[in-house]
Amino acid sequence: MVMSYGIGLVGWGTVGGGVLEILHQDGRLLEERCGMQVSCRAIVTKHPQRPRPTEQAPGNAVVSDDLNVIISDPQIHTVLHLVGGLEEAYDIAARCLRAGKHVVTANKALLAERGHDLFHIARQHQVCIAFEASVAGGIPVIASLRDGFVANKIISLHAILNGTCNYVLTQMEQFDLGFEEAVAAAKELGYAEADPTLDIDGTDSAHKLAILARIAFSTTVQFSDISVEGIQNITDEDMASAKRLGCRIKLLAVAARRDKGLELRVAPTLIPLNHPLANVPANYNGVLIDGHAAGPNLLVGQGAGALPTASAVIADLVGIASGAYQDTANHFTFFEPSYNVPVVSEREEVTGSYGRFTVPDRPGILAGISACFAERGISIQSIRQDRPAENDRAILETITHPCPGGDFLDAVQAMQKQGLLVENPVLWRRIPQDL
Amino acid sequence: MVMSYGIGLVGWGTVGGGVLEILHQDGRLLEERCGMQVSCRAIVTKHPQRPRPTEQAPGNAVVSDDLNVIISDPQIHTVLHLVGGLEEAYDIAARCLRAGKHVVTANKALLAERGHDLFHIARQHQVCIAFEASVAGGIPVIASLRDGFVANKIISLHAILNGTCNYVLTQMEQFDLGFEEAVAAAKELGYAEADPTLDIDGTDSAHKLAILARIAFSTTVQFSDISVEGIQNITDEDMASAKRLGCRIKLLAVAARRDKGLELRVAPTLIPLNHPLANVPANYNGVLIDGHAAGPNLLVGQGAGALPTASAVIADLVGIASGAYQDTANHFTFFEPSYNVPVVSEREEVTGSYGRFTVPDRPGILAGISACFAERGISIQSIRQDRPAENDRAILETITHPCPGGDFLDAVQAMQKQGLLVENPVLWRRIPQDL
Repeated sequence: MVMSYGIGLVGWGTVGGGVLEILHQDGRLLEERCGMQVSCRAIVTKHPQRPRPTEQAPGNAVVSDDLNVIISDPQIHTVLHLVGGLEEAYDIAARCLRAGKHVVTANKALLAERGHDLFHIARQHQVCIAFEASVAGGIPVIASLRDGFVANKIISLHAILNGTCNYVLTQMEQFDLGFEEAVAAAKELGYAEADPTLDIDGTDSAHKLAILARIAFSTTVQFSDISVEGIQNITDEDMASAKRLGCRIKLLAVAARRDKGLELRVAPTLIPLNHPLANVPANYNGVLIDGHAAGPNLLVGQGAGALPTASAVIADLVGIASGAYQDTANHFTFFEPSYNVPVVSEREEVTGSYGRFTVPDRPGILAGISACFAERGISIQSIRQDRPAENDRAILETITHPCPGGDFLDAVQAMQKQGLLVENPVLWRRIPQDL
Repeated sequence: MVMSYGIGLVGWGTVGGGVLEILHQDGRLLEERCGMQVSCRAIVTKHPQRPRPTEQAPGNAVVSDDLNVIISDPQIHTVLHLVGGLEEAYDIAARCLRAGKHVVTANKALLAERGHDLFHIARQHQVCIAFEASVAGGIPVIASLRDGFVANKIISLHAILNGTCNYVLTQMEQFDLGFEEAVAAAKELGYAEADPTLDIDGTDSAHKLAILARIAFSTTVQFSDISVEGIQNITDEDMASAKRLGCRIKLLAVAARRDKGLELRVAPTLIPLNHPLANVPANYNGVLIDGHAAGPNLLVGQGAGALPTASAVIADLVGIASGAYQDTANHFTFFEPSYNVPVVSEREEVTGSYGRFTVPDRPGILAGISACFAERGISIQSIRQDRPAENDRAILETITHPCPGGDFLDAVQAMQKQGLLVENPVLWRRIPQDL
């Protein structure tokens, strides 16, 4: 006889619909693979009366706007928590955990900003929070970090975690669209929300980075410690620069172990064309995990969307229901950091840097700029002036070998003090060529 | 108190050494992450007296050439089986399983050719065989297929599974080396064995494909059903062709669900430069998994080497020791196929095809070749003649849109019958552009 495993669903939006579709259409597949029948006993939604597509048939589930139908059902062991936002989402998750139910969530903001409290409640009530779907959608990145790379000290993560930004940047590059046009194209295809601010300004990437860094480095991560820069200021001129340099601009989330602590940042970054992360296409996500034993591993896939996200939600559900998420002591694995690694400031980062400098068109400028770098021991990889000077101004572009961010900023400040720059410079990070 | 978990090691070669290095240097990391202390109690090797590097310190382990030190130790729960070859490797694994010990192995030939028997023994004795390290080294591809994509019907796998071949092809392309020179370079760096025949001729890739296909499609796979072609016949001229066409040649292992069954093959394949698999560099492996829910997922990493492979071995060890590899019924997960999907013949494959045809330099040839394709409903994507005719001969290159392999072969045979070809043609598969 096949065991039945009762679940409840909170939130019947895009992802909730995807989960119901898979349970409805592929329930037998799960039964074969896991030896159990997933039985959705209750669905809680703000719109219980709304007509739904037939492939999302709720089966025998009670459909209600009252969370108590889940809380009070002792046969619901796991709750799929598929609601956005913060405060209400927190209350729902906390109530489910306190009722002794495991929670699977896709809400990255909730985990990044209130995760610490939720994991505390989960531990108190001996239940599990699973969140594969919260980062990089259908890509099994949390499982890979937690299980696949369990024998690894993680050296660094470099990741493209926001499909909207990747799509916008790809469109700008490939079709010479302006930023606003590209955002409009993304909205049209459903790759951007009506208000894509939290995607575009880097917040969403930073939420996901906070979650990954916590697992990868087993450390508490304060969301506010992450330095965040979005893509809202990227111009056609920036795109042209990147192309000239044999690079693409990607919104890159980085967590890297440095001598003095952890580097955590989200920023537009130049990536050489033959680097695998440069080739993460369209609205895809990509995560490059560098482990001391496994070496660099790149994972690329769909970071959002109904079915990819539902795929991750169900993987977590199976992990919990099958007992795979229990550790040796038969306790559920918590998201329990062992360390409190300090976050290093931008000055202590070590990265290759790009600078685009508008300078007066007169002799000695290049020498002056080179000297500003040399005096701080910064090694220049390339320096170029592609366009003829206009209005007595020239544009110089420099790329440095990796150096401390503080030294680079000091060099630029010195250029400004010496009157070498006539406009604010454009400064980006650039990651090295190789995997 | 931290639980101690006893293991034994069979085989102290490259991978065994890597495992001992991680256990020796990072034992505390594992203890923190898994709540247990891995205690290596016995090492069985043909060379117990051989001097070993200090970082592979065996600790308190008995070092012996007698497997009985493992078989007879009731405190050894899991055996890390890190020996190559077939017959002896089979006997060792079978003895360990019959003694009630779980087995973690990196031996793909053993699994591909005798897996069925071993899994039967494992099931009889209620123990587990784990084999993440057998395919794609440090990349968690088995775990991703089994757990991460548990909610997915797998549509296809396209994979670069042999680092030696990928390195050789990359060297030929980038540095215009001949095949033999590139193989010599790979040997020098330790990327190829002294006798690399089983890598070069595609056998190793086919072993790995057999393992992946069995899990992905939950079907029995007869190793002999896989059509295998290696890279030994790739020439400088082939490399030049690929470059002209905006492609790279990769040794691609493919398992794909077709209407009539499963397509299973290993063959040199043209991959367009902007396809992510074209950018799997040097000696790396890459696996593109297309799931019906998660969509296409690409995993890239080191497919061999001491530490990457050891990373996968230890991930399996932790999975077993922590109980994560037990299913709901508290039985260990077996490698138990549910189906017996037929393998389709080359004629039933559906793939884009490339042909390089040496033809007489006279009018009407192109029309004749086009007609051979058109009569079989094959749509031509491109046809080109880049070089001037020599000795009354010209070279034509054609690329077709995806079509049944049988139709393509029939078309080529018709060209031969009609005297359109003056040499044997060069025929390859070509995968489409997009992810």
